[in-house]
Amino acid sequence: MAHTLVIHGGAGNITPAMMSKEDEQAYTEGLQAALNKGYDILAKGGAAMDAVVAAITVLEDNPIFNAGRGAVFTKKGLNEMDAAVMNGKTLGAGAIAGVRNIKNPIALAREVMDHSGHVFLSGKGASEFALSRGFTQEPDEYFFNKLRYDQWVEIRDSDFYQLDHKADNLKGAPAPNPDHKFGTVGAVACDEQGNLAAGTSTGGMTNKRFGRIGDSPVIGAGTYANNATCAISCTGHGEPFIQSVVAHDISCLLEYKGLSLQEACDIVVKDKLVKIGGEGGVIAVDSKANGLFCFNSAGMYRAMKNSEGIEEVAYYG
Amino acid sequence: MAHTLVIHGGAGNITPAMMSKEDEQAYTEGLQAALNKGYDILAKGGAAMDAVVAAITVLEDNPIFNAGRGAVFTKKGLNEMDAAVMNGKTLGAGAIAGVRNIKNPIALAREVMDHSGHVFLSGKGASEFALSRGFTQEPDEYFFNKLRYDQWVEIRDSDFYQLDHKADNLKGAPAPNPDHKFGTVGAVACDEQGNLAAGTSTGGMTNKRFGRIGDSPVIGAGTYANNATCAISCTGHGEPFIQSVVAHDISCLLEYKGLSLQEACDIVVKDKLVKIGGEGGVIAVDSKANGLFCFNSAGMYRAMKNSEGIEEVAYYG
Repeated sequence: MAHTLVIHGGAGNITPAMMSKEDEQAYTEGLQAALNKGYDILAKGGAAMDAVVAAITVLEDNPIFNAGRGAVFTKKGLNEMDAAVMNGKTLGAGAIAGVRNIKNPIALAREVMDHSGHVFLSGKGASEFALSRGFTQEPDEYFFNKLRYDQWVEIRDSDFYQLDHKADNLKGAPAPNPDHKFGTVGAVACDEQGNLAAGTSTGGMTNKRFGRIGDSPVIGAGTYANNATCAISCTGHGEPFIQSVVAHDISCLLEYKGLSLQEACDIVVKDKLVKIGGEGGVIAVDSKANGLFCFNSAGMYRAMKNSEGIEEVAYYG
Repeated sequence: MAHTLVIHGGAGNITPAMMSKEDEQAYTEGLQAALNKGYDILAKGGAAMDAVVAAITVLEDNPIFNAGRGAVFTKKGLNEMDAAVMNGKTLGAGAIAGVRNIKNPIALAREVMDHSGHVFLSGKGASEFALSRGFTQEPDEYFFNKLRYDQWVEIRDSDFYQLDHKADNLKGAPAPNPDHKFGTVGAVACDEQGNLAAGTSTGGMTNKRFGRIGDSPVIGAGTYANNATCAISCTGHGEPFIQSVVAHDISCLLEYKGLSLQEACDIVVKDKLVKIGGEGGVIAVDSKANGLFCFNSAGMYRAMKNSEGIEEVAYYG
């Protein structure tokens, strides 16, 4: 059997003009390290879920990505993180929203799936669950990042929020400014046994408030996996992704209309999402280990590696 | 054009043996009052969303239903409520999770949709949003209910949680005991203009902890509306409903396979959900104002009224 790992580190207006050589090198190295870590598990016959969590953990630990250590600041100057995983074989799922001081939110999402008896935990309660399961808490300083902090300081006294880049101030609507990225990380995998898994992790939007939850931890919206169809992880402006139930919609187009993975992703990302102003993209893999990227933004930090010898790291459209 | 309102007040093992005459009268009156309030709006040519919110408000204000005033107690002895609305014409949606001291969570979900620039708010942040929009907070005593309190006291020192009835102690798995109900309220409507709306509100499970979020506020799972297909509100054991993306799955069976509303609901509720142990049911209406109930539990508190003269209040299967 074939196996494939696909990862992303966010989408948005990622163009050569926006990236320095140093940026390119940092993102290349960050994506490659996550890809290698996850793919090694698949290459040794390991499980899709293990590969997904391993790859996302590397991305969470790298402060250039808006997840885990690199999470952006909320209106109150905190780092509140969301994450989810789903197992395509069992349809088991775990998700957390608004969690602080947890080094690897993706590991906590998996713990919710495996050991909570629930699917979706939030806020301080989710942290209590983490502690009850032996997770340790990192101090606020672990999550401190000068770039993220400066982005927040610049708009903290306003009602605006930001999509992981300083010039895209939003106030309940997509930014007119072209200089924006949707910071989120994710991975999808198909293993030797044909089992699928998906995971997504994010710090959300800079200056977000009111306990805002985006699409990442919403099963069916930002994260979904089903061995009968595909595994999907999304990145983009979360609200339209929730309203469009993006990940599950792609799955249904395979299951009920018999579309190919590429056809289904194109319809949802490049047509349906565009019509409601939903900018961003998805990574996807089906149970035959076909992997792909699909986005309606200028670029997406992304990488893929499979048993057919494909290995790719890219950002631009 | 025709118009229809369908409401529910929870599902589960609701049988004649479980209900006293007084119970029957209380549920009949409670459902009828909510039905009348919402249907009057439709009959006067009002909007589906207005009818849904009006009907759910009546159910939230009635302590016999596990939502609003009648919300169950968490592990910490609090009342934490979840709610969501979705507008089938615009695909606009609003949801809240883990909110305390708000009299009518469904009104807050609608406020999120209309005025937050977001879709999904949680915890204290959602309460801050409510206060910023002029909502007032009710004291804890408003939500105090002797029955709910006694249910909680009985299991508060355990790791068990309950599905709105004292004998169904769960610990991460459906209860073997047959005496259980899934307390949630919801409404779906089709108005004179053919616009659809859906709403759901709940207090969740007695003795829930860790900030657990069920399916009710998860757009696509417990609540979904789309003029192109249908409006759905669910009630049941939330975790399998999230994993199955129940409401959106029914919509996709209409959109992509051309099934009737009845066929789609039967497949999802009586086959797919049963296979993963998901007990409960849905209420549904399509854009031709066909309304229906569908459940795999012994009963569901439910009512429907439409412009064809149908008016029904029922509980048993």
